[in-house]
Amino acid sequence: MMLPPIVDVADVADAALAERLQQALDGKTKPLGSLGVLETLALRIGLVQRTERPRLTEPQVLVFAADHGLAARGVSAYPSEVTWQMVENFLAGGAAICVLARQHGLALTVVDAGVRHDFAPRPGLVSRKIAAGTQDALAGPAMSDAQCREAIAAGRQVVSELPGNAVLLGEMGIGNTSAASLLLARLTGTAIEACTGRGTGLGDEALAHKIAVLHAVLQRHSEAVEPLQALAAFGGLEIAMMVGAVLQAAAERRLVVVDGFIAGSAVLVAQRLVPAVGGYCVFAHRSHEPGHARLLHALDAQPLIALDLRLGEGSGAALAWPLIESAVRLLDEMASFESAGVSGALPS
Amino acid sequence: MMLPPIVDVADVADAALAERLQQALDGKTKPLGSLGVLETLALRIGLVQRTERPRLTEPQVLVFAADHGLAARGVSAYPSEVTWQMVENFLAGGAAICVLARQHGLALTVVDAGVRHDFAPRPGLVSRKIAAGTQDALAGPAMSDAQCREAIAAGRQVVSELPGNAVLLGEMGIGNTSAASLLLARLTGTAIEACTGRGTGLGDEALAHKIAVLHAVLQRHSEAVEPLQALAAFGGLEIAMMVGAVLQAAAERRLVVVDGFIAGSAVLVAQRLVPAVGGYCVFAHRSHEPGHARLLHALDAQPLIALDLRLGEGSGAALAWPLIESAVRLLDEMASFESAGVSGALPS
Repeated sequence: MMLPPIVDVADVADAALAERLQQALDGKTKPLGSLGVLETLALRIGLVQRTERPRLTEPQVLVFAADHGLAARGVSAYPSEVTWQMVENFLAGGAAICVLARQHGLALTVVDAGVRHDFAPRPGLVSRKIAAGTQDALAGPAMSDAQCREAIAAGRQVVSELPGNAVLLGEMGIGNTSAASLLLARLTGTAIEACTGRGTGLGDEALAHKIAVLHAVLQRHSEAVEPLQALAAFGGLEIAMMVGAVLQAAAERRLVVVDGFIAGSAVLVAQRLVPAVGGYCVFAHRSHEPGHARLLHALDAQPLIALDLRLGEGSGAALAWPLIESAVRLLDEMASFESAGVSGALPS
Repeated sequence: MMLPPIVDVADVADAALAERLQQALDGKTKPLGSLGVLETLALRIGLVQRTERPRLTEPQVLVFAADHGLAARGVSAYPSEVTWQMVENFLAGGAAICVLARQHGLALTVVDAGVRHDFAPRPGLVSRKIAAGTQDALAGPAMSDAQCREAIAAGRQVVSELPGNAVLLGEMGIGNTSAASLLLARLTGTAIEACTGRGTGLGDEALAHKIAVLHAVLQRHSEAVEPLQALAAFGGLEIAMMVGAVLQAAAERRLVVVDGFIAGSAVLVAQRLVPAVGGYCVFAHRSHEPGHARLLHALDAQPLIALDLRLGEGSGAALAWPLIESAVRLLDEMASFESAGVSGALPS
């Protein structure tokens, strides 16, 4: 059994601070609780930052990219080359995440966690390539234990070198919904059928094939029941690196904005290793991928938006970002009943 | 019977343009349809603006404020003075909508449609006061036919004088969830119990009282079955003005971003008068108010977000605004498969 990484993550819970934050929210010029989920969000960010006056500074989008050996088994609608082609598209500014990052003033870094392609060094690209993609998980483990540990450590280091106090986690990797489905099935004991969807757009027959392949992979690795064992068995390198990113961000009390199904599967692994990380995570959206609702349920997470997205890249996280910023601004900038001279509720 | 205002609103439907827009979206570097609701939104905005390259310019938040005679019957958790106090708060920049408008660069105009208070003239305040609040709808019609017509005309004029091509409609008026519930019940034939909620925060007993009052108001005005008759019977002045705003915005092919339950009730009236206005509307959110889901269903509307908001003021519209902007930017700025050299989907 692999030893989990030793990461010191403080529990965000602080009843006294939570009460002061709630009082501040309740004193704002609005009916009690009328900002709904945004109030919960403001409170959480205050707890993450251990302050009644949270601030969001220099938010960073991290897109971890890697290839998957299992893609050769026909589990994706797209060929593996799309992984590196999309990395080029990220660097050229033409992908959805680029548009959204520009719109919201988010810094964007692409991390090569294990793409089967040699990239020329470029601004915005961080090379942390552990291997040229994972191995075929049907033939053996996707990663060795050493690769898995190395990827987690690299994810931790990438985050530790970033400025700001919020990271938005996204990914790119043809075949990576398969790895996420496998992790969800194994770590929550859910039937693989309920964890598996069409990914980037499989038809009915191809979906049945994907489920059959994933079923066989689960059987092949029936002994991989611990989180890190499962991660090494199923992959991918970008998911392992996101596990490290979540652990490090939480250890540094950064807010973690989790994109979709695949980034969420990394949080599932990280939370099984260090339960306190959950307190630092905001779940951006619920995607079209059917396993995502189950994953969010397993994480006890209420996503902010549900727009039938199924793109990845951190696009859902970037779309949800303005809502997160609104929560902090409303707490900071709204007048109180007292300061604005507005009457409170009538005695009931 | 009151004659409906004569407003020329073109149907947005254009099959050829819709196909060109969909082709442009399908050619972007993403799996087909993977931007979900944002693709539907981009397509709609293209149809509203009759172009494959829509642009959003100088978006305007309009907050229509007015008092309600029915508030004296104890249908709200807050006293009527809160209407004018909140208008002052809007003008001082301390309300939620002010924070959100600043965050997103939205111009904010408060329209006094009928607040029971004399405001000193100020930048950001437009005085269109039809009366010092509506009359008690349990004693007689909330507005006269002339007032109702005048309010609609004023709403049209307010919009016609604004720059830009998008308006975000919000409101403030203690008691106005009652008017919205009454309009919904009457115009859709839904039981008042299913249309009525706690508004700004009524307890169980007060909610039962509110339902009883609204039931009696419906009986009192059993003859008010046409949209304008119902609007005059139930109020309010801010709702009537929003009806005019929706009609004018649609006539000028502006995008209409509809806030919550009360702004939505104005769209219901406007759409019954001129069915084509629906094509110009984007529904920002689904609120906590139980009637809102029914209203959205009646309008065949899919709201963008659902954050358990119940504040009004246009706050939901402002929160949804960045998503609307994203839809347009993604259509405009994303690379195509061809231009980025990214492989398409495998043959299935």
